[in-house]
Amino acid sequence: MANSFSGIAASNGIAIAKAYRLENPELNVEQKNITDAEAEVARFEKALGQSVSELEVIKERTAQQISEKEADIFGAHLLVLSDPELVGPIKERISSDKVNAEFALQETANMFIAMFESMDNEYMKERAADIRDVTKRVLAHLLGVSIQSPSMISEEVIIIAEDLTPSDTVQLNPEFVKGFITDIGGRTSHSAILARTLEIPAVVGAKTAMATVQNGTLVIVDGLDGNIIVDPDAATVSEYEEKQAAYDQQKAEWATLKNEATVTKDGHAVELGANIGTPKDIAGVLENGGEAVGLYRTEFLYMGRDQFPTEDEQTEAYAAVLKGMDGKPTVVRTLDIGGDKELSYLDLPKELNPFLGLRAIRLCLEMPDLFRTQLRALLRASVHGNLKIMFPMIATLDEFRKAKALLLEEKAKLQDEGVAVSDSIEVGIMVEIPSTAVMADIFAKEVDFFSIGTNDLIQYTMAADRMNESVSYLYQPFNPAILRMVKMVIDASHKEGKWTGMCGEMAGDEVAIPILLGLGLDEFSMSASSILKARAQLKKLSKAEMESQVDHILSLSTSDEVEEFVRTKFVNA
Amino acid sequence: MANSFSGIAASNGIAIAKAYRLENPELNVEQKNITDAEAEVARFEKALGQSVSELEVIKERTAQQISEKEADIFGAHLLVLSDPELVGPIKERISSDKVNAEFALQETANMFIAMFESMDNEYMKERAADIRDVTKRVLAHLLGVSIQSPSMISEEVIIIAEDLTPSDTVQLNPEFVKGFITDIGGRTSHSAILARTLEIPAVVGAKTAMATVQNGTLVIVDGLDGNIIVDPDAATVSEYEEKQAAYDQQKAEWATLKNEATVTKDGHAVELGANIGTPKDIAGVLENGGEAVGLYRTEFLYMGRDQFPTEDEQTEAYAAVLKGMDGKPTVVRTLDIGGDKELSYLDLPKELNPFLGLRAIRLCLEMPDLFRTQLRALLRASVHGNLKIMFPMIATLDEFRKAKALLLEEKAKLQDEGVAVSDSIEVGIMVEIPSTAVMADIFAKEVDFFSIGTNDLIQYTMAADRMNESVSYLYQPFNPAILRMVKMVIDASHKEGKWTGMCGEMAGDEVAIPILLGLGLDEFSMSASSILKARAQLKKLSKAEMESQVDHILSLSTSDEVEEFVRTKFVNA
Repeated sequence: MANSFSGIAASNGIAIAKAYRLENPELNVEQKNITDAEAEVARFEKALGQSVSELEVIKERTAQQISEKEADIFGAHLLVLSDPELVGPIKERISSDKVNAEFALQETANMFIAMFESMDNEYMKERAADIRDVTKRVLAHLLGVSIQSPSMISEEVIIIAEDLTPSDTVQLNPEFVKGFITDIGGRTSHSAILARTLEIPAVVGAKTAMATVQNGTLVIVDGLDGNIIVDPDAATVSEYEEKQAAYDQQKAEWATLKNEATVTKDGHAVELGANIGTPKDIAGVLENGGEAVGLYRTEFLYMGRDQFPTEDEQTEAYAAVLKGMDGKPTVVRTLDIGGDKELSYLDLPKELNPFLGLRAIRLCLEMPDLFRTQLRALLRASVHGNLKIMFPMIATLDEFRKAKALLLEEKAKLQDEGVAVSDSIEVGIMVEIPSTAVMADIFAKEVDFFSIGTNDLIQYTMAADRMNESVSYLYQPFNPAILRMVKMVIDASHKEGKWTGMCGEMAGDEVAIPILLGLGLDEFSMSASSILKARAQLKKLSKAEMESQVDHILSLSTSDEVEEFVRTKFVNA
Repeated sequence: MANSFSGIAASNGIAIAKAYRLENPELNVEQKNITDAEAEVARFEKALGQSVSELEVIKERTAQQISEKEADIFGAHLLVLSDPELVGPIKERISSDKVNAEFALQETANMFIAMFESMDNEYMKERAADIRDVTKRVLAHLLGVSIQSPSMISEEVIIIAEDLTPSDTVQLNPEFVKGFITDIGGRTSHSAILARTLEIPAVVGAKTAMATVQNGTLVIVDGLDGNIIVDPDAATVSEYEEKQAAYDQQKAEWATLKNEATVTKDGHAVELGANIGTPKDIAGVLENGGEAVGLYRTEFLYMGRDQFPTEDEQTEAYAAVLKGMDGKPTVVRTLDIGGDKELSYLDLPKELNPFLGLRAIRLCLEMPDLFRTQLRALLRASVHGNLKIMFPMIATLDEFRKAKALLLEEKAKLQDEGVAVSDSIEVGIMVEIPSTAVMADIFAKEVDFFSIGTNDLIQYTMAADRMNESVSYLYQPFNPAILRMVKMVIDASHKEGKWTGMCGEMAGDEVAIPILLGLGLDEFSMSASSILKARAQLKKLSKAEMESQVDHILSLSTSDEVEEFVRTKFVNA
């Protein structure tokens, strides 16, 4: 009998296929005394050998089906298995303490995991995760339990799992994995982001999927609305096939808008840009008809390495983005680390409230050499395109003045050195701290542009950590307080002849778009995959009409009232 | 030769006396093998006995010179020394492992400390602190090193210390300890608060005092400006004696204002209230001429216990405050725990950013039974005075409506039970979250009053943890963004015929007071000891003149500009 429930829509589209349960086997280890230590060591070595062959196959498949880069994680796992510093003590423990291999392995591995985790350094923590992952695999072989590998899937399925580990997600092959459902996680979890990149429909945070869905049962995943239907009848299947067809048609319609300008039905043009993390993302921006890069998050350039990127390395990356965008506006945000973003090679003090701590521009002003290197690289790359530099987490005018002064100093130095630097670089700030929104009129006299970072602006304005589920009810993009601040910023910029963009998630939201148009937002920056849908929506809206609604919307009392009003009158109308 | 440096002025007044260094002796423990275990156990028992006698003397002195309550901590220390579960294993370790007493003591104590600390419960953590404190004392006896006890001081001194432990501070006798200087700590650290309560001049965060000041050297502590002068010449001593005399005279002048109303020179009356933590603080409020209690922090009633206070216990405390205030306005803030305030008997989940987490009204709405008990107690006490109930950390109108609905439900229930409840209780909110300041016009239609909590409002508006030194430069009460928000709140309340108070530290600040008067603030609530000074200042100011300055002040660009303008024209004028 059909059974349906819902979760968080994490990646658009609909998939209909058989359920494939990705189980986390229970690995219960008991301490046992053994008599034949030599035989026990041999048993351990056999399990090691099995794990090595298995990992080699998975690595190979991942490299072929996904990419070499994603396969690297299994290379790291293989290294762990051949590390004498781990393997030696386990064998010794078996021999000297006369204990079973499972116990010796678990005790030794736990010691290493605890040691690496206590090191308070992202790189070491990743090592701890590798050891944990590998230990599980070897234990499974010792206990005769099998561990499933998504790369081994060879028929069309929908994966059902408690959660997907990084080593699971890199193995997802869109040829066979048509969708997935996880019981935990949210829209911004690792697996949800990957689903959107691979364009696999997904629902996360479904809570009861593992408890209720049997292997092989037909399942519908509706990643558009977050619905899951288990064992649907024929009528439901065709209903969803129609929905899928409608979605495909809509996507095809959107695709026709790729090379059009974004103009409302009353002739007002706005700019639709994309948020990117690496030069590789440019292809997707252009494919989706992006008119600009509204946010290039440079911190990815600093991650997954063991030292700071050099000025040359950075120059190359920035130049690649600018060239790729071929003269289209490209807003590069300077380094935003600290908070929840750590670098393995930069030891920052632990903070009680990292989101209210030394991050982004605060850290860059504290470590000016690090900052100057990035500024020089940006300036050197500036001749390759239409560069706009943006400072994150600006809370006071002093901070902006200091950051800009460093930029001008480096520019003068480069020019003295005879290096060409563009003379038309705009310098702006993220508006993501309430004080800056409230003081926008003062800032507007000195900056070239604003870009509103809604994720942080909402979190600080509501005093609610957006990662903390107990207060997630306070993450309210449509709270009139947020909209009023957005208005203050846009009005202030226009009064001084400057422009305002938005690069938080809100910029691509169908309820937010009509409001933001009414408020006068000049540039909307979002995931590349949302651009065409936003363009289709904007072409049907009238700027004048939305402007006439603004006073009423800002006088509403709650987030729910705003959302209901706009959804009823301007989204579902 | 005289040497002077400065720190953070933590408690007003000037003291001139000899330096008394409170040293933290180095207790280096080495593991040694012993041969005569019996003799070693006897040596350990001797050190135990010495520690017991010492603690009994300190406890007795503290009880006589300070209070029975403050002496309790040493009762807890004595209990630790007689605990067989701690002492037994130490002796056993000496005998079985043939190790020296110091090593056996330290190893065993560290195990207990680690165990209690890992329990993640305030009560157990205090036990860990007790064991740490006592272990130090016994170790000192074993090593033949002496530990100083401030209660043994019998001549006038100024204490110089790295920091003061709770067991140090309870021993401070103002008869002999004329002032103190610590190298670490801030204005809100435990020792700074105690200094203000005892009215001992103090400078904290002096950094280099222990490194530079010798025992017995004459020292001047200027708790008014945060200055420290070591080995002053005669001229400097008389200069500071004059400053002290001037301060004493000023205090005497202020004292004459005790029973006067707070009226500006152009005839505008405001209300000066006090922030209190327990019913015992009422005496100080009245002595300092307080016209109201602007903030009664009820969470202290919940702390230092092992279970929630009952409805009857709470009713008694609230009634005591209301009776003590004898009909004067008394604003009681409902429970504000979570964030950095924990209760030993309430296990809350660890949060990554507790200041942006489940605290105050968020927690109370999540645990309605806990909240209802407090509301019932407040309602039952309401007939004893002029009660106003205030909800903390309100971010949305929904939260206020929910909290007020619970209050009205309990009121109706009590009335059904025939319990008398006042019919004139005002119900208001703290404005300490940016969204609430920005939406004050909407809130003003439904609340009876606002009270602006500047400590949190500044922290959230600037996105800077006020406890985090790396971003302390962003804790800017005079940032025009903060002042603009204060204006939004006051204007919104007046438009609806409501009133606005302020109960953060800013309300008692001499630079803030002229601005707040100009903005139209109705009630200023501060430490009781600041009231008379504020009254003296307000009597010399003109409301009309300050009003005429508001537009200019709010158009300034930075916190420094505001502070300099107001200080020059209206404080030092």
